[in-house]
Order: sequence, then structure tokens, then C-alpha cells
Amino acid sequence: MEMLKERIRKDGVVKGTDVLKVDSFLNHQMDITLFGEIGKEFQRRFADSGVNKILTIEASGIGIACITAQYFNCPVIFAKKTQTKNIAGEVYTTQVESFTHGRIYDVIVSKRFLGPGDRVLVIDDFLANGAALEGLFDLIHQAGAELVGAGIVVEKAFQPGGARLREKGIRIESLARVKSMSEETGVEFVD
Amino acid sequence: MEMLKERIRKDGVVKGTDVLKVDSFLNHQMDITLFGEIGKEFQRRFADSGVNKILTIEASGIGIACITAQYFNCPVIFAKKTQTKNIAGEVYTTQVESFTHGRIYDVIVSKRFLGPGDRVLVIDDFLANGAALEGLFDLIHQAGAELVGAGIVVEKAFQPGGARLREKGIRIESLARVKSMSEETGVEFVD
Repeated sequence: MEMLKERIRKDGVVKGTDVLKVDSFLNHQMDITLFGEIGKEFQRRFADSGVNKILTIEASGIGIACITAQYFNCPVIFAKKTQTKNIAGEVYTTQVESFTHGRIYDVIVSKRFLGPGDRVLVIDDFLANGAALEGLFDLIHQAGAELVGAGIVVEKAFQPGGARLREKGIRIESLARVKSMSEETGVEFVD
Repeated sequence: MEMLKERIRKDGVVKGTDVLKVDSFLNHQMDITLFGEIGKEFQRRFADSGVNKILTIEASGIGIACITAQYFNCPVIFAKKTQTKNIAGEVYTTQVESFTHGRIYDVIVSKRFLGPGDRVLVIDDFLANGAALEGLFDLIHQAGAELVGAGIVVEKAFQPGGARLREKGIRIESLARVKSMSEETGVEFVD
């Protein structure tokens, strides 16, 4: 998605060789006009997939997922990172290792909102090691729902997540795939 | 907002006298069509306020804030509950006590995204004790930005937050104000 790549080149900030800060438009301040274009592009790519639920994980996936859901006319469920008092009763649970935060946390989704017959599109802002996505896929599997694929805004293609998930036959659509980056030369994308 | 009140009566679940679960449409599974109506209503109420930024707090405010921002043509900033490695540098920080989780946490926003000249609308899903809102107001004050008011989806009007904030002269627009509730009789709204 050329518009997104241009925005990353313009406003993304590279730290070292593996941190790409896009917090001015994607995951802290959020450019909702850009999100609209992202949502339309996900809809175009998954138009014939019969998506009836979008699943994401708190927090930075939620905004993109909600804007995208307008183009699919479906609800969004966000998986929660810790069990709160307000979610009583039955939940599906999986564990996800966060490389950013250096810890493992529980991720839950209520059993009431995912089940057989659901065709689920997973949306997230980043794909790097793929741990968060695998956690969401596990929740979908536990629910007996069908995983349609994943729509990712930025994939760090030099990290192993994308390749490993595609090898399993999962459809991963990333709108910008970063091949390499450095503070000197900026971001290079996969063609 | 009658449509919202009807939805709460229909799908909200009361636990005891102070827990209202709306996780089937508001803060776990999210009904994006309803969010569109909520966004339009916030835009109607704050139409003449010159809003150029919407501020919310992770996680459950983000979806409502993003959908609402489409009607204001402005970006959304979500305040983060803990400092992550990916937000380096200068941030505004405040502390918020969570009654739901029984702890105090730091809430931050990057100094790059809020400043003098900004006219900020705060959006959140719930107002009860008002602790989260006060934290966001403090961040706006630190930034030298102007607080236009707060748009709240559900206010527990029997808890002290709303009255305390309105007494300070802050404009609080709540789309559904719960006067009282019980498992037997359901939810009663302020007229």
C-alpha cells in the first residue's frame, strides 16, 4: 500500500536496526483518515472471505480494527491481556510472550463472542515475531471458529513471524513489509 | 441518547447494585454500527467547540474515540497505562487509581502530540469515580492545551465522579446516565 509506505518513510523513526517508531500516526497518535484507507484496503483484500467478526488485541490494534470493521459491517472483539473483575465466567485463554515488554501474559476472550460458524479476520498493527497473532489464532481455534486470515499494517519481514505463519498455510496480508532499516538509510520495503 | 439506553436495557447485565456489564456491545465485543451513532451524537453536542484532538485512554475508550474522530476530522491520541520501550523521550505523566483493578498506575502521553493551541475532547466508555478522566484532564493541563469537555458513553450517576467534575465547571456530556440499578429491576436512567 503505497500511501502507507510513503507515510512510514516520512514520519517513521528508526532506532537501531529493529525499532520502527510510528507513534505519530499509528499506535499512540492515530491518523483516522489513514486508518480509513487501511480499512478499505483490508476490505478489498478479504472481500470474498465472508468475514463476520474481526478479532484484535489491546491496545494498539483496536482503533484500526474498529475503522476496518465499518467496511465489513461486522463487530470487533478485542482480546484482553489480563483477566478483569468485569469479565466473569467463561473465557478462552492463551499465553503470549511480549518481546517489547519482556514478559508473558494471559490473553482472554469471552466464550460468548466466538464460536463455530464465525469467520474471523484478525487485525493488528505490527507483525514481528508473530507471538501475539499466534495467541489470537489459538483463541479462534479453541472457539471452533474459522480463521480467515490476518490483516497487518506493518510487518517486519526481517523477523521470523510472517514466514513461519505463512508456512502453516495462514493467509497474512501485510500492507507494508519492511525488508531492512537503519538510522542512516531509513526503511527499505519488500517489493 | 434513547437508542443507547434501549441497548443497555436489552443487552446490559447488572451484577449487584454497581456493576453493569456491557461487554457484548461496548467494551469487549464492540458494535461498530452503534459506535457510529455514538460518534455522531458526540459531534452534534460538541459541534461548535473547535475540537482538533481527541484524547482517550487504553483500552476500551479507543474504539469509540476512533469512530467519533471521523465526525470531527481529527486525530486520536490514546494515553498509555505503562511506559513501554517504544515510547522513548519526553512524556507527560499522571497517576490514576483503578477501582476495577484495585491499583494505581502511571498514565502517559508523548509531549509531541499535545500542546498549546490544541482544543481537546476527551472520550471514554465509562464515568464512575472520575479518576481516569481526572488523569486525562491533568495531562491536558500539563500540555498547556485547552480542555473542551468530555464525551462519555455510560455514566454511573450514582457515583461521585460526574457531579465533582461538573462542579469544577467542566463540560461532561454522558449519553446514558444510570440513576440506579439492581439485578431484579434492571437499569433506571436519569431523565
